[in-house]
Amino acid sequence: MKSNTVYMTFNTEGRRELIRITEQVQDAVDEGGISEGLALVAAMHITAAVWINDDEPGLHEDTLEWLDKVAPPSWKEPANEIARGLLPDPGDYRHHRGGEDNGDAHLKNLLVHHQVIVPVTDGRLDLGPWQQVFYCEFDGRRPKRLIIKVLGE
Amino acid sequence: MKSNTVYMTFNTEGRRELIRITEQVQDAVDEGGISEGLALVAAMHITAAVWINDDEPGLHEDTLEWLDKVAPPSWKEPANEIARGLLPDPGDYRHHRGGEDNGDAHLKNLLVHHQVIVPVTDGRLDLGPWQQVFYCEFDGRRPKRLIIKVLGE
Amino acid sequence: MKSNTVYMTFNTEGRRELIRITEQVQDAVDEGGISEGLALVAAMHITAAVWINDDEPGLHEDTLEWLDKVAPPSWKEPANEIARGLLPDPGDYRHHRGGEDNGDAHLKNLLVHHQVIVPVTDGRLDLGPWQQVFYCEFDGRRPKRLIIKVLGE
Repeated sequence: MKSNTVYMTFNTEGRRELIRITEQVQDAVDEGGISEGLALVAAMHITAAVWINDDEPGLHEDTLEWLDKVAPPSWKEPANEIARGLLPDPGDYRHHRGGEDNGDAHLKNLLVHHQVIVPVTDGRLDLGPWQQVFYCEFDGRRPKRLIIKVLGE
Repeated sequence: MKSNTVYMTFNTEGRRELIRITEQVQDAVDEGGISEGLALVAAMHITAAVWINDDEPGLHEDTLEWLDKVAPPSWKEPANEIARGLLPDPGDYRHHRGGEDNGDAHLKNLLVHHQVIVPVTDGRLDLGPWQQVFYCEFDGRRPKRLIIKVLGE
Repeated sequence: MKSNTVYMTFNTEGRRELIRITEQVQDAVDEGGISEGLALVAAMHITAAVWINDDEPGLHEDTLEWLDKVAPPSWKEPANEIARGLLPDPGDYRHHRGGEDNGDAHLKNLLVHHQVIVPVTDGRLDLGPWQQVFYCEFDGRRPKRLIIKVLGE
């Protein structure tokens, strides 16, 4: 059995960003010399996610908008347009009592999951034609880590 | 270490369908002669899912209805009953600008996840009494693939 | 290749409870003598979940409240405060026709997923600083099982 472990660090400019990392996951497989196996790709933070989906900019905007509907920055309706512009604000999450303002990012992490497993066949990520791996940042602007662990032979 | 990789292709009659595949996953384990390991079951498309849940018809209808509430075919309320009957329609997803009409299927895929890992113990899928593996189609009527990859010894 | 399989049984006092199990997952890794590998942690029931998130009580209350918004005990608005106090009630889920009252717990299971994979490096769970593994009960007060399966070398 062989294994290879790679860590990546992201420090995004925006609070929310989707970053394609399919190529880096393939690099970890190549580096480990693994031809048959499983590659775990997991955020090491609880306010980010990893998902497999389409690399289509319209869809990316759709998903971020949708995540704000299902796991909103606050349960309170913003009082006016200025308040709306300040979102995400501390909202009324209990998690915000200690000064945090990222309660929604925790929920988004739970909703879309923080990890995927990519099958490896003949040394290649065995993905469908439109499947790309993304790191999904929901509370960026600071260093955040991700682990890629490939197991196989 | 042993591994076995099996591909399945689905071409459902309906746009949305749940298909039980527990038996086929067990077949992939048997075929690989694996007694201790992990079986990855993953949709190779970004508009379908794989989940483990109850094989209870009422619950299946509940889940499809629920997914339409949380990730609706359109954010716009249908104008009338005729429009409602035409759902899913292109809606107001950005992803639909290019002619696609399956934005909601992408969100459903993210919501319930496109993959599961089934533990294998003594050559059997080590599932609880009501756990069944399902392929969940959200945008069918065309050939779609799934991968089963078993790793172990 | 080595593997170790551990089963846990939970019988919670409350219908819904979050129980930290990071230490027990590490024990399963130690017991198996595995230094590089993957640890699958999966609920064996379809009305419970396993997630990795923060061990912060305010956030735990937030997540349980949020799950009731996204996958409510009933689609019907409770008639009054007394009815509200009786929640979860059988609601209007098709799954409840046979006398069950846990339709929402099935949806919550699908929503936040019933399993996680934890990477193991140098014999330790390779988690970020705030990542803790939780068993999440959505329909307790009866014995429910969980499986930990570690694969590696």
